[in-house]
Amino acid sequence: MTAEIISVGTELLLGNIVNTNAQYLAQKCAGLGLSMYYQSVVGDNEERMTESFRQALSRSDILILTGGLGPTEDDMTKEVCAKVMGRTLYLDEHSKSRIEDYFVRTGRKQITENNWKQAMVPEGAIVLDNHNGTAPGLIIEQGEKCAILLPGPPNELIPLFTEQVEPYLRSRCPETIYSEMVKLCGVGESRAETMIKDLIDAQTNPTIATYAKTAECDIRVTARANNETEAEEIIRPVVEELYRRFGHNIFTIREDETLEQVVVNLLKRNCLTVTTAESCTGGLLASRLINVPGASFAVKSAFVTYCDEEKMRLLGVPKEFLDKYTAVSAEVAEAMAVGGAKAGGANACLSVTGIAGPDGGTKERPVGLVYIGCYLNGKTVVREYRLRGNREKIREQAVVQALDLLRRCLIEQEGE
Amino acid sequence: MTAEIISVGTELLLGNIVNTNAQYLAQKCAGLGLSMYYQSVVGDNEERMTESFRQALSRSDILILTGGLGPTEDDMTKEVCAKVMGRTLYLDEHSKSRIEDYFVRTGRKQITENNWKQAMVPEGAIVLDNHNGTAPGLIIEQGEKCAILLPGPPNELIPLFTEQVEPYLRSRCPETIYSEMVKLCGVGESRAETMIKDLIDAQTNPTIATYAKTAECDIRVTARANNETEAEEIIRPVVEELYRRFGHNIFTIREDETLEQVVVNLLKRNCLTVTTAESCTGGLLASRLINVPGASFAVKSAFVTYCDEEKMRLLGVPKEFLDKYTAVSAEVAEAMAVGGAKAGGANACLSVTGIAGPDGGTKERPVGLVYIGCYLNGKTVVREYRLRGNREKIREQAVVQALDLLRRCLIEQEGE
Repeated sequence: MTAEIISVGTELLLGNIVNTNAQYLAQKCAGLGLSMYYQSVVGDNEERMTESFRQALSRSDILILTGGLGPTEDDMTKEVCAKVMGRTLYLDEHSKSRIEDYFVRTGRKQITENNWKQAMVPEGAIVLDNHNGTAPGLIIEQGEKCAILLPGPPNELIPLFTEQVEPYLRSRCPETIYSEMVKLCGVGESRAETMIKDLIDAQTNPTIATYAKTAECDIRVTARANNETEAEEIIRPVVEELYRRFGHNIFTIREDETLEQVVVNLLKRNCLTVTTAESCTGGLLASRLINVPGASFAVKSAFVTYCDEEKMRLLGVPKEFLDKYTAVSAEVAEAMAVGGAKAGGANACLSVTGIAGPDGGTKERPVGLVYIGCYLNGKTVVREYRLRGNREKIREQAVVQALDLLRRCLIEQEGE
Repeated sequence: MTAEIISVGTELLLGNIVNTNAQYLAQKCAGLGLSMYYQSVVGDNEERMTESFRQALSRSDILILTGGLGPTEDDMTKEVCAKVMGRTLYLDEHSKSRIEDYFVRTGRKQITENNWKQAMVPEGAIVLDNHNGTAPGLIIEQGEKCAILLPGPPNELIPLFTEQVEPYLRSRCPETIYSEMVKLCGVGESRAETMIKDLIDAQTNPTIATYAKTAECDIRVTARANNETEAEEIIRPVVEELYRRFGHNIFTIREDETLEQVVVNLLKRNCLTVTTAESCTGGLLASRLINVPGASFAVKSAFVTYCDEEKMRLLGVPKEFLDKYTAVSAEVAEAMAVGGAKAGGANACLSVTGIAGPDGGTKERPVGLVYIGCYLNGKTVVREYRLRGNREKIREQAVVQALDLLRRCLIEQEGE
C-alpha cells in the first residue's frame, strides 16, 4: 500500500518553518510498511489544492493532509478535500460541543462565529477527537483509498496520529517492514557502495542502500515480511556479510546509536576516563562526548588551548616542539595528548590540532591539515588527516575522526 | 516569477532526515521576490522523477532540485533532468580535475570509477564549482525557464546557493528585491511579532516577516524597488523603527553575521580576551566562539569541568558552595566564572552549569534549569534560565544565552 503526504501552508512555502510533520509522518508510515513515493507542500489556494489532492488520490492509496484546518477563511483543506471526494459538510454536534468544552477548559474568552467552521464534517467521515486543540482530525474513506486530515501544530498532530491514526492504519496494512542500520566510519560512501555493489544489485528483499554522513557512512538494510521475526531472519545474513567485508569499520548496527555513544560505552565498559586537548576543534569534540546522556562517568574535564602559550602552560607542550615543528604537527599533537591526560587526570586523551581555515594554509601545509593524537594507558597514536571543506566542515570531520581513532584504540586494547 | 523546489531522496520519504534544505531555499526565494506555490519530495526512481520534473517545469519558471547528485547508481537527478530537458551528458574536464584534486587534498586513497559520474555535465549547462564536495551544482536554462541542481548536504548546498545561485537569480529577476535581516536575542518570536503587529499589518512595501531560531528571532524586511538605493530608502525607516522598539535586543542587521561574530568583534574592539568554564554545554560554547575566523585574538583557552572535583581543582570553586548549593546554582556559576577567568588568564569568562537531562531533574529543579555566569573585568553577573526541549536543544539555547549575556555586558561596559 502507498501513502502520500500533502502539507498545506503558506508558512512552509515562505520558509518560515521547517516541515517536521512530514518527517514524523514519513517515519511512521515507513514503520507501518507503507511505501511513500511523494510528499508535497501546497499553499492555501483552492485551485492548486484541488489539483494536488486530486493527483495524490489518483496515484496513492492513503493521502495524509496536514494543516489548513483552522477557523479562518484561509483554512480550506477540509472544504477542498470534501469537494474533491464528492462529500457535503454538515455540522457535527459532537465536535461542536467539544469545541465549547475546549474554550471553557482553556479559559478563553469568547467563541467567535468562525469557530463553528471547525465543527463542520464531511458526510461519512470518521471524526478523530483532538484533545489539544479545536480542529478534529478526519478520515474520509473511498473504496480502498482514504484521506486523513490532521491539524498542523505538532502537539495536536502527533497525539492524534499515535492514538487514533496509527491503530487505524495498522488494521489496514497486511505487511511488516523492518530495517537495520549498519553504521561505518573510515570508509567513504562511494567506496562502501563499490565494496557491496554485488549485494545491492542481487537483493530485492532485503534492499540495501547507502547514506553519506559527515565522515561517516550508513547502510540501511530493509526487509518486508509477515512479521518481525521473519524480517529479522531475512536481514541477519546480509548484516553478517557486511561485517565480513567492513569489519571494525562498522561501529554499530543500532539505528539510534551514535559514534560518541559507542565510544562512551567502550570507555565505561573498561572503566576508563577520557579528556580532550583541542585546538582547532575548540571544544566541539568534548561537547559531542558530553552530549551522550550519562557521559559524566567517562568525561570529567576537557581543555581548549587555542594558542601556543596555553598549549605550554596547560598541557606542558615543550616550547622546542612548537618552535621546531609548529603547533600543527604530529609532535605537538602527541605532546598535547600526553599532557592533556596528565592535566585532566584521565586514562585517555584525544588531542586535535590543525588548520581549519579560511586563513593560515600554505601549499605544503594546506587548510584541512589536521593531526589527531590519542593517548591511552601509556601509549600514544598520532594520525595525519587532510580534510576538505569550509572551516565548520573541517572541524566536524576532525571530531568524527578523533572519536573513531579512540574507538579503534579501545577495541585494540580490549583485544590484547 | 515563480520558483518550485523538488527534493530528491529516499531518506526524506522514509523520514530519516528533516527537509531543512526546503526551508532554507524557500526563505531565500521569498527574499528574492520569487513566488513559490509548490514544494515536493520524490524518491530515487526514474519514472516518478521524470513525471515530477516535467510537471514542475510546466507550471513554474525556476525549478530547484536538491539531492541525488552523488556518485552511486541511485543518484540520477542530473540524468533524469537532462533527459526531460532534452540534453545529453558529456565528461566535463574541469569538474573531473576538481574531483581528482578533492581526493588528493582530502588524502583519500583511491578514486573509484563511479566518481567520474559526478563530472558528467548536461550540454550547455552552467557548472557551479562546489568547494565542499565532489558534486558540482548545475544550471540548465531553457528559454525563460531554468532548472538549478544542487547537492543535498546543507554544507555544500548553502555556500553554492549564496555564492553562485543567488547572484544568478538576482540577475534574472526584473525587479530588485532587497532585504535586510534584523536579528534579535532575548525576545521570543511570538512576543516579537506582537510588538510589531501594527507594522506587519500596515506594510506592503517593505514587507516584514519574523523567523524563529534557537533562542534567537530574525525579522526580515523586504522591499521591491527599481534599484538598490531606492530599496534601501524604503527599508531604512522600518529598521529605525525596529531599533526604537527592540533596542539592544538587536545584535546585528547584517544577514551573514552571527551572534558569536558580534561577540568576538566586541572583544577585539576592546582588546579583551574571553575563556569559558562549561559544565552541561561541555565545550559547545567555546567551540561556537572559535568557529569565528580569527577568534584566536580573543579566545586563548577554555575549560570543561563536568564533575564537582574538576570544578574545584581547575576553577577553584569552593567545596562548601558545591555541598551547600549543588553544582547547578547561581553561586557555583559565579565561582566558575571568576575561577575560569583566573585559570585562563582572561579578561572575561562565561560559565554554564545546568540540568540538560534527560535525567537529573526534580519538580523544583527541573530539566532545563541553567545558570550562566559572566565575569568581565572584575564584575560578575549571573542569570537563571528555564529552557525547554531535549538535551541537545537545552545545551544549544544555553550557548546562545551565554553569548548574548556577554554581548550585553560588553555593551554596558563600553557605555560606561
